[in-house]
Amino acid sequence: MSGELTVVGLGPGPAEWITPAAADAVAAADVVLGYAPYLARLSPKPGQIFEASDNREELDRAARALVLAGEGKRVAVVSGGDPGVFAMAAAVFEAVEKKPALENGVDIHVEPGVTAMLAAAARIGAPLGHDFCAISLSDNLKPWSLIEKRLRLAAEADFVIALYNPASKARPDQIGEAFRVLSAVRSPQTIVAFARAVGRADESIEVTTLAEAPNALCDMRTLVLIGSSATRAIHGNNERAWVYTPRSARGG
Amino acid sequence: MSGELTVVGLGPGPAEWITPAAADAVAAADVVLGYAPYLARLSPKPGQIFEASDNREELDRAARALVLAGEGKRVAVVSGGDPGVFAMAAAVFEAVEKKPALENGVDIHVEPGVTAMLAAAARIGAPLGHDFCAISLSDNLKPWSLIEKRLRLAAEADFVIALYNPASKARPDQIGEAFRVLSAVRSPQTIVAFARAVGRADESIEVTTLAEAPNALCDMRTLVLIGSSATRAIHGNNERAWVYTPRSARGG
Repeated sequence: MSGELTVVGLGPGPAEWITPAAADAVAAADVVLGYAPYLARLSPKPGQIFEASDNREELDRAARALVLAGEGKRVAVVSGGDPGVFAMAAAVFEAVEKKPALENGVDIHVEPGVTAMLAAAARIGAPLGHDFCAISLSDNLKPWSLIEKRLRLAAEADFVIALYNPASKARPDQIGEAFRVLSAVRSPQTIVAFARAVGRADESIEVTTLAEAPNALCDMRTLVLIGSSATRAIHGNNERAWVYTPRSARGG
Repeated sequence: MSGELTVVGLGPGPAEWITPAAADAVAAADVVLGYAPYLARLSPKPGQIFEASDNREELDRAARALVLAGEGKRVAVVSGGDPGVFAMAAAVFEAVEKKPALENGVDIHVEPGVTAMLAAAARIGAPLGHDFCAISLSDNLKPWSLIEKRLRLAAEADFVIALYNPASKARPDQIGEAFRVLSAVRSPQTIVAFARAVGRADESIEVTTLAEAPNALCDMRTLVLIGSSATRAIHGNNERAWVYTPRSARGG
């Protein structure tokens, strides 16, 4: 009896940003596993089982999902955003690598989703219109020295930089550290945008500069975008300011 | 009379990867503008006008869309993937910056979508599970020296690297140049994956190494993913190989 495990990206929040393929994968599942706030976005269908777990239990959740699928069940593991970006898909393959037998009779799929930086960028304008990088500031699973090195090289490369997990209660000061690293390379006038809770009722967008960035509100629900040297804030004839990075670039 | 311009991401190809918000924006439009192959994915509704244009005419298309919206129409400009990633959203804001009056009475929105690297990554496993960057290899709008610099610094930062627009008829050799730049920094055993026409009938995935990468098929419809030093190809108990980048990292 062959089971199925689909790692599903639910997008940044609202149902209108969940792809039909992702919605179908959830609807078809016998069991849906995930971090509780992601499950809370969904309604179990009759006969469907929801298993919530904590944010720090990704590898256990992945192994549990593989076990259930190995029993012949159709299983969905849900992530916010895209499951491949700082999320559950890597945990599932880590579990398979640690214990290959977990994949016995299990058909694994990954369903992509709209990752947070794309939704944040859409609200702000087109800041990711040119070469960019994405860095998680969480040092739960990597040394801070590596994060610093990547920030410095990304600044030297003049990438637009998207920072995931910029702050948490346990590490409120790292985002300030990150701005210091970036400020050693980039102009204080570099555009920085804070996109908080994009797609939710309490969504807020703040556009500022690298010099002023340390004063902005930044928490677990914030995505931070740091512009390249070409990124600019413009005002058309409306009140709204837009941030975008032109498609063309000089230098090198 | 106030018009509306929505820049819409159609995802990598199949309808099941178009978000409901993107589908609604297209359905609600009086006029839909885009590069012909993207329009070909959609069916005009009665009374709806489709205006196709060529790939190189992004700025003209953006200006035309703003003019139509300024006349009070509801206008959608469609891109493949996400409109903010090497696509139409930046062109629209460039047009607004060049001629702010174009925004008069126009309400601009950007609707995010699943960008190519997320769909490619999902097919391959979870290669973007850790810090990554996205670089367009097209030198239509930027000097090759800048592309080289970014490739070198991205390799030094040990990012996973997604290459958009890796080759075209006009520049078949640049991807080989890119592999040479990366090979100066990265191990020849670095995982490289070629994801071609993801989501289409002729989809193909090839996983190889940096040493062997120059021999792989690579064209305009290919997304190339270069692993970090931690990216690995694994075999579970099934035949299928998976490529993933662990959530944890050492070094720095």
